[in-house]
Amino acid sequence: MAVYTDVSDEALRAFLADYEIGDLLACKGIAEGVENSNFFLHTEAGNFILTLYEKRVREEDLPFFINLMGHLARAGLACPQPVRNRSGTALGRLCGRPAAIVTFLDGVSLSRPNAEHCRALGAALAGLHQAGRDFSMRRENNLSVGAWRPLFLQAEGQADTVAPGLAARTRADLDVLEASWPEGLPSGVIHADLFTDNVFFIGDEVSGLIDFYFACTDAFAYDLAISLNAWCFDADGTFHRDKAGAMIAGYDAVRRLEPAEVAALPMLARGAAMRFMLTRLVDWLNVPPGALVQPKDPLEYDRRLAFHRRASDARDYGWVG
Amino acid sequence: MAVYTDVSDEALRAFLADYEIGDLLACKGIAEGVENSNFFLHTEAGNFILTLYEKRVREEDLPFFINLMGHLARAGLACPQPVRNRSGTALGRLCGRPAAIVTFLDGVSLSRPNAEHCRALGAALAGLHQAGRDFSMRRENNLSVGAWRPLFLQAEGQADTVAPGLAARTRADLDVLEASWPEGLPSGVIHADLFTDNVFFIGDEVSGLIDFYFACTDAFAYDLAISLNAWCFDADGTFHRDKAGAMIAGYDAVRRLEPAEVAALPMLARGAAMRFMLTRLVDWLNVPPGALVQPKDPLEYDRRLAFHRRASDARDYGWVG
Repeated sequence: MAVYTDVSDEALRAFLADYEIGDLLACKGIAEGVENSNFFLHTEAGNFILTLYEKRVREEDLPFFINLMGHLARAGLACPQPVRNRSGTALGRLCGRPAAIVTFLDGVSLSRPNAEHCRALGAALAGLHQAGRDFSMRRENNLSVGAWRPLFLQAEGQADTVAPGLAARTRADLDVLEASWPEGLPSGVIHADLFTDNVFFIGDEVSGLIDFYFACTDAFAYDLAISLNAWCFDADGTFHRDKAGAMIAGYDAVRRLEPAEVAALPMLARGAAMRFMLTRLVDWLNVPPGALVQPKDPLEYDRRLAFHRRASDARDYGWVG
Repeated sequence: MAVYTDVSDEALRAFLADYEIGDLLACKGIAEGVENSNFFLHTEAGNFILTLYEKRVREEDLPFFINLMGHLARAGLACPQPVRNRSGTALGRLCGRPAAIVTFLDGVSLSRPNAEHCRALGAALAGLHQAGRDFSMRRENNLSVGAWRPLFLQAEGQADTVAPGLAARTRADLDVLEASWPEGLPSGVIHADLFTDNVFFIGDEVSGLIDFYFACTDAFAYDLAISLNAWCFDADGTFHRDKAGAMIAGYDAVRRLEPAEVAALPMLARGAAMRFMLTRLVDWLNVPPGALVQPKDPLEYDRRLAFHRRASDARDYGWVG
């Protein structure tokens, strides 16, 4: 959510000389994306986004992300399409950092999506899963169940300073999740971070999905569980069954959920909430002095976990199939 | 250089409903401007900049700034043109803050302008002064000679921690400036902050001037002196006579400098350097914890002051008239 690197006009012009997108007309640093520096570019060929990849994105993962966006865009998904330079690659270097130019997508993120927006999001997510079916690269999900206990151990000693009892209930949840984590579900490329700020709408239609820098290979239904958490709860933990039911139905209408996926949904939703509670908790306890980015509240996900603990069936999430 | 206020899509849509610029297509927070929150807006009518005025801009000054931009744009200057809403005003409120929409200007700021860019800037600055001649509002320059001693007093005790001897030489400079500050020069609307990041170029042509939030009523030649300081020195204090000479000549070709203005130029340049040294010094000594903005180095202007102290004649700045 910040611009970490200043790019001089000279460095930018030299970089753009390798691309066939015409002369530079305007460049503005924009507050978008979590870990990278992003710039709005206007050139003679139109509007683009320039991204400089900062430290927290592993450089060896970039070909997966860049090739995935290209693959999905060619398959018709509304997502940023990487622009190749004259050497035929979409990954260059600028100011000492890996850098890429992607197409600009119109659309606005919604602060308070309603059930129909959630239905549209479910359908778009299923479309993403379909479009990624024949993508040949793989990337393990390094924030799945196996990563949660080590994350928790970093925060365990201080967890109760954030909320009384947080350490004990997290420990108990982890025991359940590790013992019962669903395996063998239909898998492929998932977005793994499809929060509202990564989905653009024009009117009530999804116009674009962005920020594929957590994408990986994992169970499709886990991706749905992440978005259920992100879109269907208020910050105070209030669950909106109408939104969740619409999202699941929207998904199912495009890619039919298998019975095993439906059965696994409560556990997947609980795991997804755990994943975000834990990364937020670690970030919360480790805010560097002078940080540009305000840490997100881990307790929003602790409150979702309270809901998930009580859920036993996909019907608790509005599934009516 | 940051976005200080989050604007929800709902608040933005409600705000835009008062404007005749079509539906919202995209909105990105941008890292532009010093003290305000700025957003790139794409609507059915084109590209715009939305500005939310944060605390450091005095609300009672906003009509001056907004009306000035409108006046200059109507006079043909390439500057942001405020967009009026359906009530006929260009100043609204959004998220509890005064807010305005202005037209988007193409162009890129130069990191290292050459002499020909400086000539073009001089001509553009003279054009601004001509275009503002018949603007009826006035705003005192509250960062002119009378403000410098009070600023210095805020920093005097700590000045030598920034550079040895800084307090003594600043005190001596202030004595000279206060005793000899030029009065009675041709005056009118000046930009008062025309640094390279506030001037856009397309190719070698000036395509736009932005950020009028220090504009005020003062001597035209003082504005030229500010830009001479900003454009014609390196950070280490090296002076580029070719750039300065080109800027003055470019200015003089559009608006003929009077002999009194030429004679006053060394003192005006010294005062302009003092003004930026002092505001930077105060900011440098008062960085709030967790600040979003890196303070600028006051010593860049201390080094310019060393040059100005030795200058006695406009010819020292490349004037050849």
